[in-house]
Amino acid sequence: MSAPSVWQGAGRRLFIQEVGPRDGLQMESVFVPTEHKIALVNALVVTGMAKVEVTAFVSPQAIPALADAQEVLARTTRCPGTVLTCLVPNVKGAERAIAAGADELNLVMSASETHNLCNLRMLREQSWVGLQAVIATAQQAGVAVNVSLSCSFGCPMEGDVPVDEVFAWVQRFVAAGVQGITLCDTTGMAHPRQVHAMVQAFKARWPATTLTLHFHDTRGMALANVLAAIDAGADRFDASVGGLGGCPYAPGASGNACTEELVHALQLMGYDTGVDLAALTQIAAGLPGLLGHDIPSPIVKAGPAHQLHPAPASLPEIRARAMAR
Amino acid sequence: MSAPSVWQGAGRRLFIQEVGPRDGLQMESVFVPTEHKIALVNALVVTGMAKVEVTAFVSPQAIPALADAQEVLARTTRCPGTVLTCLVPNVKGAERAIAAGADELNLVMSASETHNLCNLRMLREQSWVGLQAVIATAQQAGVAVNVSLSCSFGCPMEGDVPVDEVFAWVQRFVAAGVQGITLCDTTGMAHPRQVHAMVQAFKARWPATTLTLHFHDTRGMALANVLAAIDAGADRFDASVGGLGGCPYAPGASGNACTEELVHALQLMGYDTGVDLAALTQIAAGLPGLLGHDIPSPIVKAGPAHQLHPAPASLPEIRARAMAR
Repeated sequence: MSAPSVWQGAGRRLFIQEVGPRDGLQMESVFVPTEHKIALVNALVVTGMAKVEVTAFVSPQAIPALADAQEVLARTTRCPGTVLTCLVPNVKGAERAIAAGADELNLVMSASETHNLCNLRMLREQSWVGLQAVIATAQQAGVAVNVSLSCSFGCPMEGDVPVDEVFAWVQRFVAAGVQGITLCDTTGMAHPRQVHAMVQAFKARWPATTLTLHFHDTRGMALANVLAAIDAGADRFDASVGGLGGCPYAPGASGNACTEELVHALQLMGYDTGVDLAALTQIAAGLPGLLGHDIPSPIVKAGPAHQLHPAPASLPEIRARAMAR
Repeated sequence: MSAPSVWQGAGRRLFIQEVGPRDGLQMESVFVPTEHKIALVNALVVTGMAKVEVTAFVSPQAIPALADAQEVLARTTRCPGTVLTCLVPNVKGAERAIAAGADELNLVMSASETHNLCNLRMLREQSWVGLQAVIATAQQAGVAVNVSLSCSFGCPMEGDVPVDEVFAWVQRFVAAGVQGITLCDTTGMAHPRQVHAMVQAFKARWPATTLTLHFHDTRGMALANVLAAIDAGADRFDASVGGLGGCPYAPGASGNACTEELVHALQLMGYDTGVDLAALTQIAAGLPGLLGHDIPSPIVKAGPAHQLHPAPASLPEIRARAMAR
């Protein structure tokens, strides 16, 4: 008997990682009250996520939307099976996140020099020096580290980023002892052919490193990229409830892959995501009220495929007229 | 050497069929002036579409938006390689379409009894009787026939439509001598596992019948469904420029698969769609002006993945500051 194809989930386990509270909320222009953030994070935790990126321990001047990081993390419900991760940019942030009880630190730099300069105001080599110190801090505290490499599938300003260059950064971090690497498609440039080849090469070279794929749906390719990645051996995906998190280069376009959209499709295909889709969709449906704007989620807009619509009240009459012909 | 996987297009030819001028415009509340319709259709023809559904020869009372079917078809540019098809509901429509020069007639009925009653006011058996007469009319005139089976992947009111039931309708039409069958996912319920299995079974049973897949992106699965269908042997897809054509059951949700979104992804993967993506995207970008409302197209909103964004003017300064650290 041959293994099931990618089209048949056949009960295979996937790990869904919710990034909305950090990657989504950091872009919001209004400050979401701390109590509401905590309620959102806790609701997401109990849907069965493998990981939730709770917040970012960054300068409140740089990202005022997440100035309450410490309180939000400290009051997040611990749930077996759900890793609580936090973005940290430097040693100071790492120390704060560790003190507040983070299970994991998520470090970010870009595979593209131009993007790294624009986003982090540093050359990549400078980021590398800084992040080595963060990794040492985490290791001393016995806290796991994941590194998210932005623009791993292309840079909106530079264009192609050679795979060899991306993988050279992966190798440095793996050698430094990090547990996980996330290849990020920061602006939705990745396509399934590219994803399949990169994931296959990654899994062959670093079989012991936990690989996450982080896609954006900017050009409608997120789900197809997830399936290409699964076919190449990946099982772990970032996504954002409601599709929160835009793309500054494409106003009006979709941003992060939408968590309930991925879970909906993958469950229909027979994958085990571990996530309660109904609970997740209910959380997403509450986001417009919380944030004051529409969200891209097609599952909130259209409902899941199995949620039927009532036939029109006039159906018996239509049928009677048809039969009288 | 093994055959390329679905993730590698490897130059394989796909056939893209544009349905926006019929399936999209029929839902518009404003009448698009005939001259503008003709300009739209002719622009689409020359992008390299394998087929364009130009209009529908239906009662102007039922669908006033397409009351100018005859003039639009008569003035559509003939282009080698592009089949001009028209939806016809009955013998009268067929005669008008044939007289106006249609290359093909597209017939529609639903695989779901409830949907057929709601949409066509007939029992499926009544549709079958009527369509047999249309097929006879087309055959006498030597014009090809395609049959589009709505709700082939599920009905929004009935739920699952058994594959055996869908295939029983396919068999009747194949036996009646039609050239092509389109399996339509009318409200975006299809998922890749289902699509892969159905296409595989269809191709095994009717290898000589031209199979088209018609997906909606209501729940974000259109591209993934296209790839599942390709992997199962399909090569022909309906789509709508700009993503025109909504879903009456889900206001605000996406409707038809968006042509430029599919072409963009498939070209990046190395497939040969035959379509000029830049020209197609330009047509889509003009639709809001023509129709007076926004369109879902992510390619119009975000641009193609290879269209780079300029780095900020302050980049040299940012770099200088970083290097001075």
